[in-house]
Amino acid sequence: MSDYRAPVSDMLFAITHLAGLERINRLPGFEEATPDLVEAVLDEAAQLANEVVAPVNEIGDREGTRVEDGKVVVPDEFKTVYRQFTAGGWAGISQSSDIGGMGLPYLVGLAVEEMWQSASLAWSLCPLLTQGAARAIEEHGSDALKALMLNKMIAGEWTGTMNLTEPQAGSDLAAIRSTAVADGDGYRITGQKIFITWGDHEMTDNIIHLVLARLVDAPPGVRGLSLFAVPKRLIGTDGALGERNEVWPVSVEHKLGIHGSPTCVLSFDNAFGYLVGEPNSGLACMFTMMNHARLGVGLEGVAIAERAYQQALGYARDRVQGQKPGGKSGVAIIEHPDVRRMLMHMKAHIEAMRGLAYTAGAHLDYAHHSPDAASRDRERARLELLTPVVKGWCTETAQSLASIGLQVHGGMGYVEETGAAQHLRDARITTIYEGTTGIQANDLIGRKILRDGGQALRDLIGDIQATVDGLDAADERLTAIRDALQTGVGELTAAAQWLAEHFADDADTPGAVAFNFLMLMGTVCGGWQMARAAAVAAGQIDAGAGDRSFCAAKIVTARFFAEQVLPLAGAYRAAIVTGAGTTMALDDEQF
Amino acid sequence: MSDYRAPVSDMLFAITHLAGLERINRLPGFEEATPDLVEAVLDEAAQLANEVVAPVNEIGDREGTRVEDGKVVVPDEFKTVYRQFTAGGWAGISQSSDIGGMGLPYLVGLAVEEMWQSASLAWSLCPLLTQGAARAIEEHGSDALKALMLNKMIAGEWTGTMNLTEPQAGSDLAAIRSTAVADGDGYRITGQKIFITWGDHEMTDNIIHLVLARLVDAPPGVRGLSLFAVPKRLIGTDGALGERNEVWPVSVEHKLGIHGSPTCVLSFDNAFGYLVGEPNSGLACMFTMMNHARLGVGLEGVAIAERAYQQALGYARDRVQGQKPGGKSGVAIIEHPDVRRMLMHMKAHIEAMRGLAYTAGAHLDYAHHSPDAASRDRERARLELLTPVVKGWCTETAQSLASIGLQVHGGMGYVEETGAAQHLRDARITTIYEGTTGIQANDLIGRKILRDGGQALRDLIGDIQATVDGLDAADERLTAIRDALQTGVGELTAAAQWLAEHFADDADTPGAVAFNFLMLMGTVCGGWQMARAAAVAAGQIDAGAGDRSFCAAKIVTARFFAEQVLPLAGAYRAAIVTGAGTTMALDDEQF
Repeated sequence: MSDYRAPVSDMLFAITHLAGLERINRLPGFEEATPDLVEAVLDEAAQLANEVVAPVNEIGDREGTRVEDGKVVVPDEFKTVYRQFTAGGWAGISQSSDIGGMGLPYLVGLAVEEMWQSASLAWSLCPLLTQGAARAIEEHGSDALKALMLNKMIAGEWTGTMNLTEPQAGSDLAAIRSTAVADGDGYRITGQKIFITWGDHEMTDNIIHLVLARLVDAPPGVRGLSLFAVPKRLIGTDGALGERNEVWPVSVEHKLGIHGSPTCVLSFDNAFGYLVGEPNSGLACMFTMMNHARLGVGLEGVAIAERAYQQALGYARDRVQGQKPGGKSGVAIIEHPDVRRMLMHMKAHIEAMRGLAYTAGAHLDYAHHSPDAASRDRERARLELLTPVVKGWCTETAQSLASIGLQVHGGMGYVEETGAAQHLRDARITTIYEGTTGIQANDLIGRKILRDGGQALRDLIGDIQATVDGLDAADERLTAIRDALQTGVGELTAAAQWLAEHFADDADTPGAVAFNFLMLMGTVCGGWQMARAAAVAAGQIDAGAGDRSFCAAKIVTARFFAEQVLPLAGAYRAAIVTGAGTTMALDDEQF
Repeated sequence: MSDYRAPVSDMLFAITHLAGLERINRLPGFEEATPDLVEAVLDEAAQLANEVVAPVNEIGDREGTRVEDGKVVVPDEFKTVYRQFTAGGWAGISQSSDIGGMGLPYLVGLAVEEMWQSASLAWSLCPLLTQGAARAIEEHGSDALKALMLNKMIAGEWTGTMNLTEPQAGSDLAAIRSTAVADGDGYRITGQKIFITWGDHEMTDNIIHLVLARLVDAPPGVRGLSLFAVPKRLIGTDGALGERNEVWPVSVEHKLGIHGSPTCVLSFDNAFGYLVGEPNSGLACMFTMMNHARLGVGLEGVAIAERAYQQALGYARDRVQGQKPGGKSGVAIIEHPDVRRMLMHMKAHIEAMRGLAYTAGAHLDYAHHSPDAASRDRERARLELLTPVVKGWCTETAQSLASIGLQVHGGMGYVEETGAAQHLRDARITTIYEGTTGIQANDLIGRKILRDGGQALRDLIGDIQATVDGLDAADERLTAIRDALQTGVGELTAAAQWLAEHFADDADTPGAVAFNFLMLMGTVCGGWQMARAAAVAAGQIDAGAGDRSFCAAKIVTARFFAEQVLPLAGAYRAAIVTGAGTTMALDDEQF
């Protein structure tokens, strides 16, 4: 059975030194988010995550969920956790205090979110989706709709869901068939939605389903989609809950992992709903949710990898087996070089991923709260560039990290009771939902790089190069890091230049190179965060500030990333510059 | 639900053109193993694998196994399959006809074994272990013991197991505590063994457990281990089955995958057993089994990846979603460049892995059957060098391939009923049992490279370089392949040279670089097999021989491997030449 201890020191380091809390603290509205307050918030959340949420993770995995008498049943322990979570006000941590939230920066919410995700990914999805749904209503809903729903959702008294997928419409939302017909001051929604996370449960009195559907006479394709808020129980104008609405769980999926999270087939049969935003602008409204959600899912990669790492580390310290090369026998396996390589590989990736995810989160705060419009645009461009990288790279990396975590256990890792296997199974969803890695990669290449002629990417490369240039060339602690990052920037620059010159070679080129481009960006951006961390740590050691052992470890870990991970940049670049030819060369029947 | 069609054409290509069937056919004893006969054998096995074995794979996963009244219960369907398997004589395919086997080359047995493994990995483990146990008895057992057991095992009437692991003795066999006390013409074995694959079942009348235990007064460590054959039911001197022996299944593990394979805790309580080989030479006897078994488990990586690939390919052809870049909508997802990249990635790796595994298998045939002693030694050295590479690289690669196979399915891949998830779960054991990847990597560096001063590795590198030199530089179809393999050989040579100069830098160096060295060797050896395949295919096309489309696909696939996989060689080399320093730099408490 695995324990979990939220890595508060690492989180604070990333928040403070990589994501730049001080700058956020100076933004209007965030004056109260001082380093001391943030540390106190993290400590309090850590207590809940470690002691209350983490212990239910295995219960959710074992018991799973089921449909009974038209209701979805989840483990009782999940309800208890949910009550403590809402009682602490955590549901609205980074939502505005005007509407009942804590009003903390999104960055801080992200670190706290990582704790819930590590503690129990399956459980954490319920508040994650609620937050996303609340944001979409806050941004696009009418004042009346906001008055009706928002406070309840931000308090966590009601939860929220995203209803996009239908059997024939997965990645391709243009194929959505659910319909909406006007009825008085609302609409009647009919259709079947699948893969609806936390689509039904009894943890709260009500659930707000955000549903993409087509109005009568709407244009075909994604331009004909509208967004509706469909409550599980009807809401009177006074806010009182009334009859059950005609939205019902048909079944829950039998999944590889996140067993505690009910993945529902939902049937809407003339269910009453409210329009959110303008007619036929549903996709744009949904994207408000999706961009947050994509960062959130990228963070799940960090969180699951962290949990898997802690599990593996604990086992490696306890398990006595074999002898040290040329040394004493009966040692803990953490002393074996290959076990240590695995742990270092996990640790280095996790710190790089966390640094990148938190940095992206900080750009979201700047993009929303910077008083200067040009600055907001610049920050938004960076956020949008990094979002598919965080989502795609962190989740792809999490697959191998969770697998390595299991490997550290040897045969015990394959036995379910050990707990390592659950992390691998849970992690496996993260490259799929909220847009597969392929979707992220296409988004990165198409919308985020080619659409602005590569400007946002050039700006990013410039910033990474500035980090390289800022590393003290005379500081031997940083030499290997500096050299490797310089090589990495060179590979990224070469790939970007190749893309600019060749993306139009044929229609398949962007899609064929997109995955390798995303992984290249993740690797170099990860190395960038590690180099920044190492520079901060070296500075702190020199200044006699901070925890010397902690800072020394940061430098070692950054160097490991530079030595063992950044060289992959060359392999990704090499694959990219071969273009689409070989990938597309076979006929269907040659496979 | 996934179907399986044994890829007979690909298997025959690898057997004929990469592993060199013709040369084996000329070895004494294998005169009957003509290409025509081998093709007929493969076709017959394919029919059984496709139609009988493959359909039970999902049943085994769903039903699993359990202990009831001191017996292990497995799905009834497994018994039916087992009966048809033994009726066909498949249990002894590559065992000598003198003792009741089919007498075919090990290479042919390997291809057929791949089919059983793809069809149902969980089920296939029972005959795999039986074959290994029979080989150990054949090689090390007394004539009396062989007369008592061998025909039954080779006919598959009795099965066999390997009993090494104890709770405190996993990778470290020196820690084994089970004891053996002489008793008349036999011994009494006492102890508890864990992780015993197919440790009990009712598919056959008897089971022969090969057990490592310590004789009274044996020296400590691995030099004090002896090997015993412990029957589940006692055997009279006339071969008749008697009383139940005192070896009992205590429990079966609840595992991530291979649910249909009972992984038992076995309790031996003064169980009667026969000594196999000399006292205190048990480890050497067991290694007879283990070397075969390691190649066999490496092959499991190929087999599971092949099954996952077929599953993903079928889905990609059927699933209609989205539009082609700049083209028509409503296309099967195999038309999307990123899906095609995933399928090509799987296909290219599988062909490379199969080529390498079969080539290693052929070296086993040469090593055993070549009439010339010097040739046998040379072949054995190559076999021993390649065995950890096949085991380690093919199974590590299979993890990512099975994961990619799931990814091709999108959300459906995460739903258990689809079948893709089972392949991922089943694959996950292969990097663990028969020695973890870390154990393989240490074996490669220590016993297979450093012990002979790098001679076997230099010979291998020489052969790969000869392949590069033999590729027609004027043939544009082969240019990219030639260039990439030349670069790969250069990286391997550089890493080997670094190792020769630095392995003694400190005691941790070999272990710290071993994993990356193994992956480097797998990548370059895989690229080598692909280059050889491309050269054969190009030659066939030029000669107007063979299936033109099949040969053209071989060249494209080899080129994909050269473009997208071989560049990893540089990253592995870069990691290796940084040595052990950073990997070992942290103190325990800094993790």
